[in-house]
Amino acid sequence: MKLMRIGPARREKPVIRVDEDHYVDVSDVAGDFNEDFFTPGWQERIRDVVERRVSGGLVSAFAGERIGAPIARPHQIVCVGLNYADHAHETGQAIPEEPILFSKSPNTLVGPYDDIRYPRGGSKLDWEVELGIVIGARASYLEDDDEARAAIAGFLVVNDVSERAFQNERGGQWMKGKSAETFNPAGPWLVTPDELPDLAALDLWLTVNGTARQNGSTATMIFDPISVVRYVSQFMVLEPGDLINTGTPPGVALGMAAPAWLVPGDVVELGITGLGNQRQTISPSR
Amino acid sequence: MKLMRIGPARREKPVIRVDEDHYVDVSDVAGDFNEDFFTPGWQERIRDVVERRVSGGLVSAFAGERIGAPIARPHQIVCVGLNYADHAHETGQAIPEEPILFSKSPNTLVGPYDDIRYPRGGSKLDWEVELGIVIGARASYLEDDDEARAAIAGFLVVNDVSERAFQNERGGQWMKGKSAETFNPAGPWLVTPDELPDLAALDLWLTVNGTARQNGSTATMIFDPISVVRYVSQFMVLEPGDLINTGTPPGVALGMAAPAWLVPGDVVELGITGLGNQRQTISPSR
Repeated sequence: MKLMRIGPARREKPVIRVDEDHYVDVSDVAGDFNEDFFTPGWQERIRDVVERRVSGGLVSAFAGERIGAPIARPHQIVCVGLNYADHAHETGQAIPEEPILFSKSPNTLVGPYDDIRYPRGGSKLDWEVELGIVIGARASYLEDDDEARAAIAGFLVVNDVSERAFQNERGGQWMKGKSAETFNPAGPWLVTPDELPDLAALDLWLTVNGTARQNGSTATMIFDPISVVRYVSQFMVLEPGDLINTGTPPGVALGMAAPAWLVPGDVVELGITGLGNQRQTISPSR
Repeated sequence: MKLMRIGPARREKPVIRVDEDHYVDVSDVAGDFNEDFFTPGWQERIRDVVERRVSGGLVSAFAGERIGAPIARPHQIVCVGLNYADHAHETGQAIPEEPILFSKSPNTLVGPYDDIRYPRGGSKLDWEVELGIVIGARASYLEDDDEARAAIAGFLVVNDVSERAFQNERGGQWMKGKSAETFNPAGPWLVTPDELPDLAALDLWLTVNGTARQNGSTATMIFDPISVVRYVSQFMVLEPGDLINTGTPPGVALGMAAPAWLVPGDVVELGITGLGNQRQTISPSR
């Protein structure tokens, strides 16, 4: 099942994607894809509704609506740093012994085709294609991988946009360079786990102005998605609808000998096997 | 004006404190003290309601209700690190050239007298009395101190509870040691700025089992509260109801030659001039 939210920013309606051209509107039964929605049994309930509506012909055609992030603003966005061995190498940092965690402001979440606004005072704007995990149940001290799997609502593409001067040159703690508005494009779909049988075989790619920059695979992750969820739950309580960005493969500007930082007008395209593609244009500072 | 929320956890009602024994219930007009509530003119609207209700005798007596945090769960909790020169010294770190920012999970927020739950796997539980700022208007790229002042709803006492092994010995980024459940007691009151004419003359204190541990003053802050709000707004968009913890004065366990880490059964008491007092007991791990 592929969850989407379509319509103007802050007024998106929740829908289920049927195929490239069609969707089922579930806004009357779902409200929004948020903390209140992800309660036990949500998948079965929505699947039933969609099956009945498809049978009854209650299917709509996409008509060029804006695509928003597939979840509403989450309670928190937790990120894993340096979770691909090659990316750690390219940024000159050691392989972490356990996951490095940092956060982004939840209001950085935007749609997969929205502009990324160049942050005022920025100078080193960078990209990071990542596999995102959306939490599907309140989760704390998860005991094993089965419990962690049960706490996952689905997966999606995220661009963990970063301002490297803010992150690394302005005095400690990465969140300073991760939290500017529009810094977390997500979507187009939230894909339920049943559609992704092998989480260790997902290809991730990203281009800037058509030039390939990132090409990776979840096969080279240091900490796999399931163990990340379990790990994070040891340090904080995860709420339904929370987002975890699981880290980026090699190929970011920060790792280049002469970094090709993003500038206004640049176009970033990215995607992950089975999770769809994104495209963002960098817009000037406010 | 002193805003409070009283009643069982997750079902608190918003009230305005009249005096030590009395309050005015504003739940019918305020809903809750959250992002939707803090809109332009909220102070005047609530003040009018309270004046009318006090005149009309619509005043209730506190009857031993639990006191919750004075704001609902915020969109984000942003913290400033090492913001008192003496505290930086005691932890062996340099005076920062600009504010160090980190985050806590928003669901760490609890009431001022709730238990602090000892985190599973923890070993170095520590306290931090701090002046908290609640944001009263959406704020981004604030230009000067006047704009920053206008973006503040009020001030409150927070205990920025920390697990130092998680924070400093488990691989990068402090939020890992700041986000366990119950790690952000707040309140008892949110005090509007008109009742705090001199933000640089607030005494902060904290005791553990009756022994004085922290005694400080906002006079020794490196970055004052107004400049902190302005600074944070350069890196992220602050939402109404967001909480900023502005850093702690000297006297934390981390700074002691033989740290007296908190253990279950310990009682922490703390307070700030004009903002009320807190008292928490450390409860065992789940």
